[in-house]
Amino acid sequence: MKVTILGNNSALPAYGRHPTAQAVSVYGEVLLIDCGEGTQIQMQKYDLRWRSMHHIFISHLHGDHYFGLPGLITSMSLLGRTAPLHLYAPGPLKPIIESILAVADNVLSYPFYFHPLPDTTALLVDDSAFSVTCFPVDHRIQCHGFLVERKTRGRKLLPDKCREYEIPSSWYEHLKKGEDYERKDGLLVKNEWVTADGPAVKKYAYCADTLYSEAYLPVIQGADTIYHECTYLEADKAKAVARYHSTAAQAAQLAKLANARQLLLGHFSSRYKELEPFREEAAAIFPNVLVSAEGTAYEV
Amino acid sequence: MKVTILGNNSALPAYGRHPTAQAVSVYGEVLLIDCGEGTQIQMQKYDLRWRSMHHIFISHLHGDHYFGLPGLITSMSLLGRTAPLHLYAPGPLKPIIESILAVADNVLSYPFYFHPLPDTTALLVDDSAFSVTCFPVDHRIQCHGFLVERKTRGRKLLPDKCREYEIPSSWYEHLKKGEDYERKDGLLVKNEWVTADGPAVKKYAYCADTLYSEAYLPVIQGADTIYHECTYLEADKAKAVARYHSTAAQAAQLAKLANARQLLLGHFSSRYKELEPFREEAAAIFPNVLVSAEGTAYEV
Repeated sequence: MKVTILGNNSALPAYGRHPTAQAVSVYGEVLLIDCGEGTQIQMQKYDLRWRSMHHIFISHLHGDHYFGLPGLITSMSLLGRTAPLHLYAPGPLKPIIESILAVADNVLSYPFYFHPLPDTTALLVDDSAFSVTCFPVDHRIQCHGFLVERKTRGRKLLPDKCREYEIPSSWYEHLKKGEDYERKDGLLVKNEWVTADGPAVKKYAYCADTLYSEAYLPVIQGADTIYHECTYLEADKAKAVARYHSTAAQAAQLAKLANARQLLLGHFSSRYKELEPFREEAAAIFPNVLVSAEGTAYEV
Repeated sequence: MKVTILGNNSALPAYGRHPTAQAVSVYGEVLLIDCGEGTQIQMQKYDLRWRSMHHIFISHLHGDHYFGLPGLITSMSLLGRTAPLHLYAPGPLKPIIESILAVADNVLSYPFYFHPLPDTTALLVDDSAFSVTCFPVDHRIQCHGFLVERKTRGRKLLPDKCREYEIPSSWYEHLKKGEDYERKDGLLVKNEWVTADGPAVKKYAYCADTLYSEAYLPVIQGADTIYHECTYLEADKAKAVARYHSTAAQAAQLAKLANARQLLLGHFSSRYKELEPFREEAAAIFPNVLVSAEGTAYEV
């Protein structure tokens, strides 16, 4: 499970940093979180395939988080996409997209489903391989974070061993659940003889844009990786508060309280060219911290 | 007078080519024609200053011609722009922009004027330095070309000569108009002694997206430079017709009939990686032809 950063700047593009977008890859599926201007070009550049993407999540309706969406949606249609696409976003985006398609006399080539985000914490997708939950954060307008959970796919079968013990393929699903197998000759084949540990459950929490808040701590508790916005440094905390944003120290404090394994910093203001001070400020509170870089895929 | 190409691809970004946008620089003013996704980033990259831009023209409402507009408009506001901005675009774009600002709870920092394009040929801007005229072209939805005319600023004063002949500055405007000056001592100072030729009148015609059509030939007649779309080569003419686009040969034919000095080709389909065949096809009909390249500023 990886997250590829496509844009990590706040508001304005600057210093080669694009507005917010990131792709979470889980079992071959690509989940797009936010879609700032230029996302379709960034996805091409970093070889993220639209064909593997069926779900897009938009945190809120400030332009730096969704102005790349109309282009992405229509480009996939021009290329003849047929697979369905699900968009989870604040409700007022729906008529805007409908108008954009209508004035272009454009009908999408694929089924497109709009799911308005509720005001509360809610399970949005519950697939056999992963789930996505939204949770409210505290911004100037309605805004959500997202928790992506990779599910275990159960025990991993060892094909050679399964054959050696002559286990019928009809029993494989039971093996994945950890069950033993009793052969007709009476031999009890222990599960651990023919399986290995499968992929672990993993949790990735995306928290942007928000004032420092512990309200959503229960949702992100124990996350393997937290991406948290830090538009400002502590020295500019007054600006952070006035604009409903966080500082690097606050992001670190939250990661610490959440017992996260790793913290990824992002959503940097254009006032900062150098980002090392963000890492330093956060590391004093939460050591396992990284400054996210565009084009890098981070293991969750 | 120059035109800087910010994007010259049709529909999809491909091979590093961006969707359509271009900036016409005339006497220090920057006129933006179309605004595909990524235009604000392209303007930064090629050092075109937003401060010098007060007019934006959108040919039609296919996304590859305006999806960069919301980002550009809001970024200028975030940077505290105060100068007015005039947008000339098909009327249905107005409520879309209003909705985009409303859902972000965003009020622009500067006066923003929306001018809906009429269905006819019409003078949109008539400044002392330049004028812009729109003219209907033939596309699947309402679409306009634009003619930008640089006006002469009259005769160019030669300051040393003006002082030598002791001409009062109050007479300078008369000199620019080509008038002579009669001194109190009776000497008639001939205009050509104290002035030189000023900048010539120049015409730049932007023609995209359109089927081949001679309907707008009277408007673009005698243009110094014509930018004409050529989404396809003649070999794919059936596609051009079906999709309301032109071929390189047709663009050349029109430039020839218009007695243009120079033809700039653009709006290439993503099916073509190499563009030299476009130049060759057009040059057989109209020799003074260039394949437009992103980031290049062409003298009109």
